[in-house]
Amino acid sequence: MSASYLARGITEEATFELFPRRLPPRRDWLLAAGLGPTLELLRELRFGERELEYLRSLDMFNEDFLAYLEQFRFTGDVEAIPEGTIAYANEPLLRVTAPLIEAQLVETILLNQINFQTMIATKAARVVLAAGGGAPGAGDCVVDFSPRRDHGADAAMKVARSAAVAGCGGTSNVAAAMRYGLRPVGTMAHSYVLAFDTEPHAFRCFIESFPDHSTLLVDTYDPLDGVRNAIDAAGDAGVTLVGVRLDSGDLLTLSRDTRRLLDQAGMAETRITASGDLEEGRIAELVAAGAPIDLWGVGTELGTSRDSPVVNGVYKLVARRQDGEWEGVWKRSADKATVPGAKQVFRTYVDGQMRGDVIAAADEQLDGVPLLVPAMRVGDLTLEESLDEIRERAAAELTALPEDLRRPEPAPEPYPVTYSERLQRLVARSGT
Amino acid sequence: MSASYLARGITEEATFELFPRRLPPRRDWLLAAGLGPTLELLRELRFGERELEYLRSLDMFNEDFLAYLEQFRFTGDVEAIPEGTIAYANEPLLRVTAPLIEAQLVETILLNQINFQTMIATKAARVVLAAGGGAPGAGDCVVDFSPRRDHGADAAMKVARSAAVAGCGGTSNVAAAMRYGLRPVGTMAHSYVLAFDTEPHAFRCFIESFPDHSTLLVDTYDPLDGVRNAIDAAGDAGVTLVGVRLDSGDLLTLSRDTRRLLDQAGMAETRITASGDLEEGRIAELVAAGAPIDLWGVGTELGTSRDSPVVNGVYKLVARRQDGEWEGVWKRSADKATVPGAKQVFRTYVDGQMRGDVIAAADEQLDGVPLLVPAMRVGDLTLEESLDEIRERAAAELTALPEDLRRPEPAPEPYPVTYSERLQRLVARSGT
Repeated sequence: MSASYLARGITEEATFELFPRRLPPRRDWLLAAGLGPTLELLRELRFGERELEYLRSLDMFNEDFLAYLEQFRFTGDVEAIPEGTIAYANEPLLRVTAPLIEAQLVETILLNQINFQTMIATKAARVVLAAGGGAPGAGDCVVDFSPRRDHGADAAMKVARSAAVAGCGGTSNVAAAMRYGLRPVGTMAHSYVLAFDTEPHAFRCFIESFPDHSTLLVDTYDPLDGVRNAIDAAGDAGVTLVGVRLDSGDLLTLSRDTRRLLDQAGMAETRITASGDLEEGRIAELVAAGAPIDLWGVGTELGTSRDSPVVNGVYKLVARRQDGEWEGVWKRSADKATVPGAKQVFRTYVDGQMRGDVIAAADEQLDGVPLLVPAMRVGDLTLEESLDEIRERAAAELTALPEDLRRPEPAPEPYPVTYSERLQRLVARSGT
Repeated sequence: MSASYLARGITEEATFELFPRRLPPRRDWLLAAGLGPTLELLRELRFGERELEYLRSLDMFNEDFLAYLEQFRFTGDVEAIPEGTIAYANEPLLRVTAPLIEAQLVETILLNQINFQTMIATKAARVVLAAGGGAPGAGDCVVDFSPRRDHGADAAMKVARSAAVAGCGGTSNVAAAMRYGLRPVGTMAHSYVLAFDTEPHAFRCFIESFPDHSTLLVDTYDPLDGVRNAIDAAGDAGVTLVGVRLDSGDLLTLSRDTRRLLDQAGMAETRITASGDLEEGRIAELVAAGAPIDLWGVGTELGTSRDSPVVNGVYKLVARRQDGEWEGVWKRSADKATVPGAKQVFRTYVDGQMRGDVIAAADEQLDGVPLLVPAMRVGDLTLEESLDEIRERAAAELTALPEDLRRPEPAPEPYPVTYSERLQRLVARSGT
């Protein structure tokens, strides 16, 4: 498509919007994520010699197009809903304005990165709400244990980051901890215990190696025997055990029994980590039942958003400049119509709670907070946020969510999102 | 854990196996994939200066361990079920034998890559069976359209490759096509049509740019009008249209009407591509109804394995060498017991159909074809297969699947997988 645009001299600007047409099943909102790393990819996007050689070998592209790709830099503008913001269906997470050919070339990279990271941040936020309520710092008790089930290397990095956006307190992915400044969290695996002749021996050795950092996995054989062995090993070494981890069985009963054993041993400060196919529903149940679990290691469910593994964001041409004039663009497929023109979203808060969004034309001025802000100008980043800033925003947004939307169960009523009067008139007039 | 092993001088060899404890929901088998690229990662695995600096900054590791990591090379052996082989629950996809510390350090990378790629190849194989029956070449009619929904950049590359393992005939991911030698498949998007004042104008321009490669997307406005416009544009240009694509609506009716229009115009060779939330169930229905669809573009469902987005492979220590003697290792958690010792899988075929597998100790010699083969020796690749070889194997395996397991619906009976008598006696004797 880009080659054809170039060949026809179609170089005027166009505006594309990236938005989900519907919320995913079992989701009442999304938590926007992925913008920062994605804008960096956009800024760095180049076509190297090998790529050009390959494209040439396909015998589909003329030399003009290959020369264009060789000097390609993204020179467009991006407006975006910042990371850590709650978003709903049809709200543009990103709006790209660039020469048509550029805006087209970046489509796949934007969708590939934003859909996925927003999906993971959303799932992580649901887990954070279930575990800690979503207040600032409340998500510290949730840790990303997902790398072994994430979809490849890039996914493992971005899952850790997206979980952090949502408020999670650490990751078992040390490479991601390094790259994004997250808290690396490790515990032993069953194989460590199995590598020694007995569990007490394994525990003593691990404590000797990490006297100040030991969280012992206690369920390789019998979990409560494991807790007793952990207590003895820590006592013998004269150290304070950081934690014990339960990875199987009835976590409510086991965590209570474990807490009792630890407290009886004078180890009130030793924390209990739970893991093993945890997700927000199960965590909410355990929290409601008062399970004395201090840290939740969430893996598969978090890293794959298992119960709802797709955010259906699309990237649609909504406006073009023709002969200097901007003009809205319509798509009218039966089931996939698009509202034309660049858009802004205005969100109203009442008493600190979000009460409703209005999707408007980008040049309207309505009440409420405009969600899309400038993120890139002529290919340069204009929005560079630290993960801390993003995490603060996410905590504020989760706190501002209507109560009905903060629970794992589906909300009885959807959050109100309407189109502005101007956009409604536009759509009505066109008869779609 | 590795740091602790090193500190204690635990350098003897151990054997780990990577296997799924259960088949995923809605899956009666898996198609193994990911081995080739993963062994390359293993061979190239290093710890660089920045990584070591970061680990040092955590103040958890002594200099001996950091020095060990600095010179780290994987020196172990790997046996594996080759890519493109059908596998079932509890069958080791991989068996790693290496000094304990090395085998431990590669756990996450193995699980991260093999779980995910096997999941995608399995999903892709289901789609291939639904679309074409699984005979060699029959999957050519399925194309990976998933990059916009894949979980990041690495996922988009590996999804394309895993789909190819299963027999798919191409990908919309040009970078993956380049890296893995796949057929790159592009068509226009709705935005191309919208970038012109009228659909006929858009079609004429696209054909002018790609006279020999045009597949026109016909449903931006009305799909059958779109087909007529496509026919006219091709006729005016005097070219043979490669194809038209339907991306929405009732694909059965639309594909029939489209075929009729094309045939009436003397364009019997123009192919019909269908896309839009397709998966194996819908494809099987359309094939059964005789929909004249020649090419299936499968995106989201393929790239995320949406209906069953997790392969729960685990990586478990099963044997250790102690004082020169190999010894099986047991894990006895209530719900996650492990059968000890290195294993082999023997598969029996009758009249070209697979009839049953026996999971045995690695040193048993049973009837049937042993599935695990040497893949790495002392850190060097011993199994280097081309994608063509792998695809041939996959086609043969899909052809050899029992009829009941070749359909999208769950099989009435699971495929028979048993343990050898020796392993059964071993488990019985231990009382687990």
